[in-house]
Amino acid sequence: MVKQERALRTRETLVRSAAEMFHQEGFTVASLATISRRAGVSNGALHFHFANKAAVADAVEESALARLRAVTADGPKAADCGLQRLVDATYRLARELSDDVVLRAGFELGGDPARPPGVDLRGYWQHWVRETLRQAGERGELRPEVVPEEAATAVVAGTVGMEVLGTRQPEWLDPRTVGRFWRLLLPTLAPAGLLATLSADGVDTEAPEE
Amino acid sequence: MVKQERALRTRETLVRSAAEMFHQEGFTVASLATISRRAGVSNGALHFHFANKAAVADAVEESALARLRAVTADGPKAADCGLQRLVDATYRLARELSDDVVLRAGFELGGDPARPPGVDLRGYWQHWVRETLRQAGERGELRPEVVPEEAATAVVAGTVGMEVLGTRQPEWLDPRTVGRFWRLLLPTLAPAGLLATLSADGVDTEAPEE
Repeated sequence: MVKQERALRTRETLVRSAAEMFHQEGFTVASLATISRRAGVSNGALHFHFANKAAVADAVEESALARLRAVTADGPKAADCGLQRLVDATYRLARELSDDVVLRAGFELGGDPARPPGVDLRGYWQHWVRETLRQAGERGELRPEVVPEEAATAVVAGTVGMEVLGTRQPEWLDPRTVGRFWRLLLPTLAPAGLLATLSADGVDTEAPEE
Repeated sequence: MVKQERALRTRETLVRSAAEMFHQEGFTVASLATISRRAGVSNGALHFHFANKAAVADAVEESALARLRAVTADGPKAADCGLQRLVDATYRLARELSDDVVLRAGFELGGDPARPPGVDLRGYWQHWVRETLRQAGERGELRPEVVPEEAATAVVAGTVGMEVLGTRQPEWLDPRTVGRFWRLLLPTLAPAGLLATLSADGVDTEAPEE
């Protein structure tokens, strides 16, 4: 393994350890000493990569944003229908929040008052949901009485709620919970003809490739 | 003012100052010195009431729970219909979260990993929503195909999402946001006959008396 590669791996290990500590103890309590120890890395090596704890947290947030981009990206099996792609992305988001502590910590850091506003994962998600529903509206995938912006409010609130509640109660990120949400909401969003073709259980919910 | 009354007022002032500091800086960063200074109270007076910062946070959470109980309590003008009472309570919750920093901080402390699980405001809200919808179902206020437990999932997720997003973006707690949510959700929950009598804008949304 060349030197540069090894440095990159060490950095990734540090980002993951940091995410675990930020998630468990919060940004303010988590210490650089615990983060480097957990990563099996010397304090010196940590400081080679990061100037201070804020820089580590920035790296966690940036890495989390890359993962969130993958969650919202269309895979090769992406549905033609924007509404279905939205449903599918919420399943991927719930699963990645359960499985990937970096994504989880990224969302949490964004809500921590001790951190300055920076990378804003909830803001990115909000923007993506709004844009996806706007396009769905333009393509006639919404009932005529549905205002895309209003639908986005309900979808963003519901999914952020599951994200936050899932921190302490993992069942909120269970696919069955996501399914309950969509089975209630889809009938008010989609015209009857389209609704029959949609799956509230998702069709393309595989883990994204980074 | 008798001595006991004065002590009670001081305690209340301290709880409010603590809530402000916890909300602004987070539990870990906020210091007892800042809290007492902000309350215009000596350090000694603070320690007369509270042994340590955890005890202050406990008091904030208990006070917040009393306020949340008032939000979910039926006022003299409470609607007969359980579904309408649920709608009305979400408007009161959104307004109190905007106006009352003690309630706001209580919710935030419950999600802070640096705090042990204790008074759980989100848990209380979850329980109340679930129970209200279960009763609504028994009284025939839900469409026959709606499972009350599933409806509760969507309502809790949506309202907790608004609570969390409202911390940094106040428009999430605007009555118009709450209205958007209910205009989308009510038609899937209520049978057509009842739906015509319901108001998605709330009917009894006055500030609760404590």
